[in-house]
Amino acid sequence: MHYTFELSTYNRLELVDITDQILHIIKTSKLKSGTAIIYIPHTTAAVTIIENYDPSVTSDINAVLSRLIPHNIHYAHTEGNADAHIKAALIGSSRTVFFENDEILFGTWQGIFFCEFDGPRRRKVFIKIIAD
Amino acid sequence: MHYTFELSTYNRLELVDITDQILHIIKTSKLKSGTAIIYIPHTTAAVTIIENYDPSVTSDINAVLSRLIPHNIHYAHTEGNADAHIKAALIGSSRTVFFENDEILFGTWQGIFFCEFDGPRRRKVFIKIIAD
Amino acid sequence: MHYTFELSTYNRLELVDITDQILHIIKTSKLKSGTAIIYIPHTTAAVTIIENYDPSVTSDINAVLSRLIPHNIHYAHTEGNADAHIKAALIGSSRTVFFENDEILFGTWQGIFFCEFDGPRRRKVFIKIIAD
Repeated sequence: MHYTFELSTYNRLELVDITDQILHIIKTSKLKSGTAIIYIPHTTAAVTIIENYDPSVTSDINAVLSRLIPHNIHYAHTEGNADAHIKAALIGSSRTVFFENDEILFGTWQGIFFCEFDGPRRRKVFIKIIAD
Repeated sequence: MHYTFELSTYNRLELVDITDQILHIIKTSKLKSGTAIIYIPHTTAAVTIIENYDPSVTSDINAVLSRLIPHNIHYAHTEGNADAHIKAALIGSSRTVFFENDEILFGTWQGIFFCEFDGPRRRKVFIKIIAD
Repeated sequence: MHYTFELSTYNRLELVDITDQILHIIKTSKLKSGTAIIYIPHTTAAVTIIENYDPSVTSDINAVLSRLIPHNIHYAHTEGNADAHIKAALIGSSRTVFFENDEILFGTWQGIFFCEFDGPRRRKVFIKIIAD
């Protein structure tokens, strides 16, 4: 009914390109065309679609998010990862893409990125494929 | 074709756990498995998925959002709720979850939260269920 | 399988109301009811749902985003549009709406807006219609 894969992150903040894993699942589904919804079952991680050509884009995103939502200021949530919860709420736990003939209908430089905000951890990604 | 429920908010800023209402609608649909899309038909409210265990996470989110997008600075929109419009545009008007056997495929601590940014008000939530 | 339309933007930052184009595509589908997913195949643009009545809301959104994520500070990505990539990652590349009887199930003042963060450019919008 849904697909799952796991990944490991190695840093507290890390944006991991998971496009190949999603594409592999789309091919596994044997569907010619449809919609793939990517869902992150974690409260301190998220998923987004960004440029996958220049890796400096990911470091810019983490730098800006950490300036706006710092790690070590006072928060009511005292487990030391309140910033991660807020970033995850903002970016969001799911993204949706379309596919046709085993290709995701991306723009030229788009990729799907798992957003780790409280790593390193072992994480899961859920995918649902909806046929056209 | 779609489900609706209403809720009341009691403060200007309030994150309300609506997981139980969504789960009730999923059960009402009698579907074994599928996708539920939650949509907020308001321009000063939103929906997100966050930790539902420690309520201090919701106050941290509102504190950070209000620091980044203050209520009482000058805005072009002069109805006194420009901040609420901007927060809603950022967080977004919909979230998507998967379900199987009357359970939402959440991570351990996830819950679906209605984000009130301009309350108190009477609000609506729309839900669409897509069968697998 | 999916619908596409193009639009032109005329400024670096511009929020363009694309509700009419989406509604036209929904009518073209001849479906009585369903879900429309709007997807932006670009890494420096996004889509969101905001008030479409007072145009000052769009200038407030751009003013706040540009204060939080300035254009001309130092970024690792040196093509001069790192801010656009970050804004797009935050707002997101897709939004979902429901429709019934040729109407989008909006709140009173909602509209769908293409978010240009690195214009002026010629841009594309993809739409997928999922029948109930």
